[in-house]
Order: sequence, then C-alpha cells, then structure tokens
Amino acid sequence: MADELKLLSTWFSPFGSRVKLALHLKGLSYEYVEEEDLMNKSQLLLESNPVHKKVPVLFHRGKALCESMVIVDYIEEAFADAGPPLLPSDPYERAVARFWVAFIETKLVEPWFKMLDGTRARAEMADGVKQMLAAVATLEGALAQCAKGRPFFGGDGVGYVDVALGGLLVWVRASEVLLGGVKFIDAARTPLLAAWADRLAALDAAKAALPDFGRVIKHAMMRRGAAAAALAQSN
Amino acid sequence: MADELKLLSTWFSPFGSRVKLALHLKGLSYEYVEEEDLMNKSQLLLESNPVHKKVPVLFHRGKALCESMVIVDYIEEAFADAGPPLLPSDPYERAVARFWVAFIETKLVEPWFKMLDGTRARAEMADGVKQMLAAVATLEGALAQCAKGRPFFGGDGVGYVDVALGGLLVWVRASEVLLGGVKFIDAARTPLLAAWADRLAALDAAKAALPDFGRVIKHAMMRRGAAAAALAQSN
Repeated sequence: MADELKLLSTWFSPFGSRVKLALHLKGLSYEYVEEEDLMNKSQLLLESNPVHKKVPVLFHRGKALCESMVIVDYIEEAFADAGPPLLPSDPYERAVARFWVAFIETKLVEPWFKMLDGTRARAEMADGVKQMLAAVATLEGALAQCAKGRPFFGGDGVGYVDVALGGLLVWVRASEVLLGGVKFIDAARTPLLAAWADRLAALDAAKAALPDFGRVIKHAMMRRGAAAAALAQSN
Repeated sequence: MADELKLLSTWFSPFGSRVKLALHLKGLSYEYVEEEDLMNKSQLLLESNPVHKKVPVLFHRGKALCESMVIVDYIEEAFADAGPPLLPSDPYERAVARFWVAFIETKLVEPWFKMLDGTRARAEMADGVKQMLAAVATLEGALAQCAKGRPFFGGDGVGYVDVALGGLLVWVRASEVLLGGVKFIDAARTPLLAAWADRLAALDAAKAALPDFGRVIKHAMMRRGAAAAALAQSN
C-alpha cells in the first residue's frame, strides 16, 4: 500500500516538511517528486490542486490530497495501523491538539508570512515580528500544558502539534537569521520550546523530513523577496 | 451525558451557530448561556478561553472547548453514537470535507471580516467583496463535486461542510443587505448554493440554531462598525 504514495512538494516547503514528518514517523515509504519552479508551476500541480495550486500534494491510490494538515489527518486515518498515532484517542485531548494547530495556522504562520514579505511596509513587517513573538510565548505555555513534563506536545511521542510546528522549525530558525538576529525560540525566553526544538530536530524522522538549515538560508538570501513569494505557494 | 453540555455564545455569532447546528443535528440538549457584552467580557469567557477570549465555548464535563470547528469535531467524536455522523468514514472523503472547511475559513471568512470592517479603507473593503465573490463561486463548484446531485455537501445528510458554511448563512444574507445589494448566494449566479441554502434553512436544526435574519439586520444597522468588531470576537 505504502508504495502507492507519492508526494509533490519543494525541498524547502515547511508545509511539505510537515507531510514528510508524518510519513517518516509512520514509517511509510513514498515517492518524492520535486516541484521545480513555483513561479512556473507543473501541469501535475495545477491539475492536482486546482483551487490553491500550492504544494504539498500527496497522491494515494491515484487521488490527490491538498493542504498540509488535512494531509496529516489523512495519513493518520488512512494508515491507522502504521506507526504510533499522532492524535490521542480521547476526544478532549484531540480537541486540545486541534486547537493548538489552529492557533499555529492563524497566529504564527500568518504573521510570519507578513514578516518575511519584503513587498510590505516596514511597519507591517515589524507588526508581524511582534505578533510572532507573542504567538511563540503563548506556545511556550501550550507546551507546558500539553507535555506536562514529557518531551513533546504529544506527550511521550511526537504528536499532531509537534508535526504542525516541527515542519516549520528550520524556517523559524532561518527567519531569526534573515531578520538580523530576532530570537523566536530561545533558551532564555522560551526554554521549553528551545529544548523541544532540539529534541525534535534530533529525531530520525526530522532529519529525513526537514530541509538543511544552511541550504535554506542560502536559498532565502539569494531570493529574498522571492523567497516569501515562493513560501506563500505552499500550505 | 447530554445534560452536562453548556454553550457560551452570543445569539448572533455565526460561529456559535455552527456549534448549535451540530448540537441540534446530533439531537443533544444543552444549557445555553448568552455572553451579554463582547466589549466587556464575562469572567467565564476570559477564564474558559484565555488564548482568544472569543465565543463560542462549549463546556462538557467541566472542560472548556474553543474554536467552532474544533468544537464540531469534538461533538462528532465525543457523541459518536448520537445522531448521524457529520464526517464520512472514508479517509479520502473526510479529507475532502476538511479541505473545504479550511477553504471556508481562509477564503470566505477572512475577506468577509475585511469587507464588513468599517474601519478599513474603501479599496480594502471592495477587495474583500471581490475575494468573497470568488470564494462563493469556488464553493458552487465544491457543492457540485461533494453533493453529486444530492441535497447537501455531506450527500444525503447534512455534513461537516454544511455545518461550517450553514452557520454563516444568515450573516452572509445580512451582508448582502448591509453592502447595499451585492449578491453572494444567488439563484442566477450560484444556483446550487442558493437551493442548498433554502434546503438548509428549512431544517429544524437550522431553525433552532440560526439567528433571526431581521434581528441580525437590525443589530448590524444599529452598531455598524461595532458589529464587525463584535463578530471578530467569535471564531
């Protein structure tokens, strides 16, 4: 069954990284197809995600799935017997995980895009930084609440929130450099998240799923404004 | 079990309407508590949704659940044996429903708020109208794809997408009036959605869950700018 899985993404997409993380955590093998140029999209992307025309797209049994966290839900449900579950079985605990993922999407990803968008006014970008710092501070509290002293948002194992935030990790780190030294996840300000980030990055699944930090920096430096535009082509 | 359910919302909140719709579709009874003044929030709201401080909040067995669609997921999972399922059992079909709900949140609700926000520049509001018209046109296609000739997004029965969009219905209609006659859901332009809206509004669950159209118009007219601010206090 696993060999019918095909992932279309770009090597640097943080949203593609979420899907890769989930696939590796579940131990599912897949064919990977690189979307070469998001400014000149492939026929495969245009046809498989006609609404958003964004990566990642996961193909399974010839059907296309779009939107990173919708794909993660799908992997969780279609391969329920593969690997450890990402969501707990208790409905309340599941709701807590979904609440934090919704928080990440609206309170972290949105200002983050604003912040990296070189076409916006300086004040608007500064506003994005402020909002993202506030979001990270809230997530520090969320980690304490969810993990209760255990290593991950998911508890002892990597869960739904870990995948949602973990996929973004290299880009969050890269943003710190690109913005000239703002610290989002930092041992002094967010000690729990900083330790969490180290633990997550050390996992085999993360090593396989996340892009190389140096390569992301180089890519972003080279493209600067265009990097934000390209990022905005994934969800 | 059902008598332990308590919903905190405002009578006009479209997001509260989603939760009410789900509760009524499942045949669950609940205590309803009105959040009287969103500009001067109750201690109950501030304590039960400390992150967003928004309605609706559903209480079940003393635990608070926030974010309308997270609450709908919870109702679906915690009361799996009550009423018809909102999500199909097939993982791919579930992903399709989740994809369209994510679409509604980002492509319909966001521009809708922009459009109704009297504090924004006229050009930005006009941009919101344009984006919302585009979103509704896409949803017309989604309905054809999901319903395949049957009455609802969920097929023969009301489903997850029907709840997400149905909760907004009275406010979408009210927005048409408030904006001086723009037509979003319209028999000529979106015949499938127009017929769907009529079918949905005729359901007992919708009659119980959705606010009165005239009262919404009166409320919005009276408050105008403040109405958008109040709307933005629910999610």
